[in-house]
Amino acid sequence: MKAIGDTMISLNDYLQERKTIVDEALEHFLPSPDHYPPTIFESVRYSVFAGGKRLRPILCMAAADTVGGQGRDVVAAACALEMVHTYSLIHDDLPAMDDDDYRRGMLTNHKVFGEGMAVLAGDALLTEAFQLLSRQDIMRHVSATRRLQVINEIAYAIGFFGMVGGQVVDLDSEGKDVEFGTLQYIHSHKTEALISVSLRVGALLAGSDNEELSALSGYGKKIGLAFQIADDILDIESSLEVLGKDTGSDEDRKKATYPALIGLESSRTKAVELVEGALLDLQYFDHKAEPLRGIAKFIVERET
Amino acid sequence: MKAIGDTMISLNDYLQERKTIVDEALEHFLPSPDHYPPTIFESVRYSVFAGGKRLRPILCMAAADTVGGQGRDVVAAACALEMVHTYSLIHDDLPAMDDDDYRRGMLTNHKVFGEGMAVLAGDALLTEAFQLLSRQDIMRHVSATRRLQVINEIAYAIGFFGMVGGQVVDLDSEGKDVEFGTLQYIHSHKTEALISVSLRVGALLAGSDNEELSALSGYGKKIGLAFQIADDILDIESSLEVLGKDTGSDEDRKKATYPALIGLESSRTKAVELVEGALLDLQYFDHKAEPLRGIAKFIVERET
Repeated sequence: MKAIGDTMISLNDYLQERKTIVDEALEHFLPSPDHYPPTIFESVRYSVFAGGKRLRPILCMAAADTVGGQGRDVVAAACALEMVHTYSLIHDDLPAMDDDDYRRGMLTNHKVFGEGMAVLAGDALLTEAFQLLSRQDIMRHVSATRRLQVINEIAYAIGFFGMVGGQVVDLDSEGKDVEFGTLQYIHSHKTEALISVSLRVGALLAGSDNEELSALSGYGKKIGLAFQIADDILDIESSLEVLGKDTGSDEDRKKATYPALIGLESSRTKAVELVEGALLDLQYFDHKAEPLRGIAKFIVERET
Repeated sequence: MKAIGDTMISLNDYLQERKTIVDEALEHFLPSPDHYPPTIFESVRYSVFAGGKRLRPILCMAAADTVGGQGRDVVAAACALEMVHTYSLIHDDLPAMDDDDYRRGMLTNHKVFGEGMAVLAGDALLTEAFQLLSRQDIMRHVSATRRLQVINEIAYAIGFFGMVGGQVVDLDSEGKDVEFGTLQYIHSHKTEALISVSLRVGALLAGSDNEELSALSGYGKKIGLAFQIADDILDIESSLEVLGKDTGSDEDRKKATYPALIGLESSRTKAVELVEGALLDLQYFDHKAEPLRGIAKFIVERET
C-alpha cells in the first residue's frame, strides 16, 4: 500500500487544495463562538475542525467538475455534507453508541463538552446542513426544484433507509454474531449512502443528466464500501500514533467487519476489486474525472 | 381555569378533528415496523404516537386556513413540524439532558429502547422532517422557491439561533442561579421559535403576504411563551395522574421557570397578558382566525 508515484503526488496537491477551500468555506458558514450561546459553537467547531480529510465535500466538488460544472460553485452543499458527516461521528462516538474516547488523535466531543452538549452539537450540525442547503442567497445558479431534489436525496440517504438505518443495525448487532448480509447492510447504509449521495449532489447541482448520475452513483457506492473495508483493515493494522484513535477497538468489541468475517487478505482483494469496478464506472467520463480516479486509488492506499 | 362555555366545546371538537387528521397523516408518512430495521420504527412511533396534543401541526394548518388557504393542503408540513417537536422531546429527556423517566404518562423513549436508540430515533425524526418537506410528490400547489423558504425558516428556527440554542442555554443553566434575561432567552428559543415558525409555515405554504406573516409571527411568539409559562405552572400545580409526567421536577432540579423567578400569581398574569396580546395580533384577520383565537385562550386554560 505504498506506490506513491507522480500521480499520487499531484493528487495529494489536489486534495490539499480542495481541503483548504472546504475548510475556508466551513469557517465562513459556521458561526464563531463570538455568537451566543458560545458553548455550542465551541463544541461544533471542535469536531468540524478536528482534521477531517473532507472526503465527502471533495467528492461532491469533483463530481460537479466531472459533469462539466465548477466544483467551487457547489462548495456550500459540500460543506453541508461535511456537517452531516461530523454530526454522525459525534453521535456515533457517544457512550450509548460506540463509546469512543478518541477520534483523529483528539478526545471525542462528549469527552470534552459532556454528553448533553455532544448530542446538541450533532443535532445543530444536522439542522445547519439543511439550513445551508435551503439558503436562497447562495447557489443561485441552480433552480429551486433541483435544490429541493438535492435536499430530498440527502435526507433520504441519511435517514431511516440510509445512514441512521445502518447505525441502528450496527447498534443492534454489537456483541452478537453477525451474518455477512447484515454486515453488508451496515456498510451500505452507514457509509456508502452518504458518500454516494455526495457525488450525486455535486453532479445534480452542476446540471448532470441521468446517465452521468447513474455512473457516479455506481462509483460512489463502490468507493464507499472500499473506504469502509480499508478503514476496518487500518483499524487492525495501524497504531494509535498513526491513526489518532484507539485501534483494535472493533476487535475488542467483537464488532462485525470485513476482516473479521472474511479475513484480512480477502478483504484487501475485495477493496481492490471495488476500486477497479469504480474506475470502470468512470469510463463514461473524460479527463475531468481524473481526480475521482485518483481518489478511488487513494482510498485503498491511504495509511490514515 | 375552567370557563368551558360553548366556544370551548366547539374548540374541543375542532382540536379533536384536527388531531385525527394529523394522526392519520403521521401514520401515513411514518414507515411501519414492517420495514427494516424494525427497531427504529418501533422507537420513533412509540414517541410520535404517545398522545401528543399536536399543537404545532394544528397551528400550522389553522394559519393556512386563516390566510385563506386550506389547512388540509399543508398537512405534510404540519407532520414534519410534529416530527421535529418529537425529536426535541426524545433528546431533551435523555439522561445527559433533562433525565426524565416519564412523559405523557409513558416511560420516555430511552427508558424503553435504550439511550443509543433514543438518540437515533431523534436523529431519524429530524432527518425525516426535512425529507418530507422536500418531497416533490406532495404539496405540488406550492412553488419550489416557497418550499425552500419554508425549509430554511424551519431549519433556522430549530438550529443554533433557535431551539437548539435554547436547549444549550437551558443545559448550561441547570443548577445555577439564572437571571430573568437568561430565562427569557431559553423560552423564546426553546419553545416560541418552533411554535411561531409553525404558524409561518402554514401561512407561507398557503401564499400569505408579509403583513399576514408578521401578524401570525407576533401571535405565535406570544402564545409560545404563554404556553411555556402555563407548562411551568402546571408542573407545580398538577399531579402525576393528571399530567402524566413527574411534576415538581423543575423545582427539584432548581430549574429556572417563570413561577420560580417571578412567582405563581405574576406568572398567571403574564400568561393572560400574552394571550390578550396574541388576540390583538389576530385583529388583522376575519372569522377564519377563530380557531387561532380559541387556541390562544385554551393554552392558559388547559389542565394537561
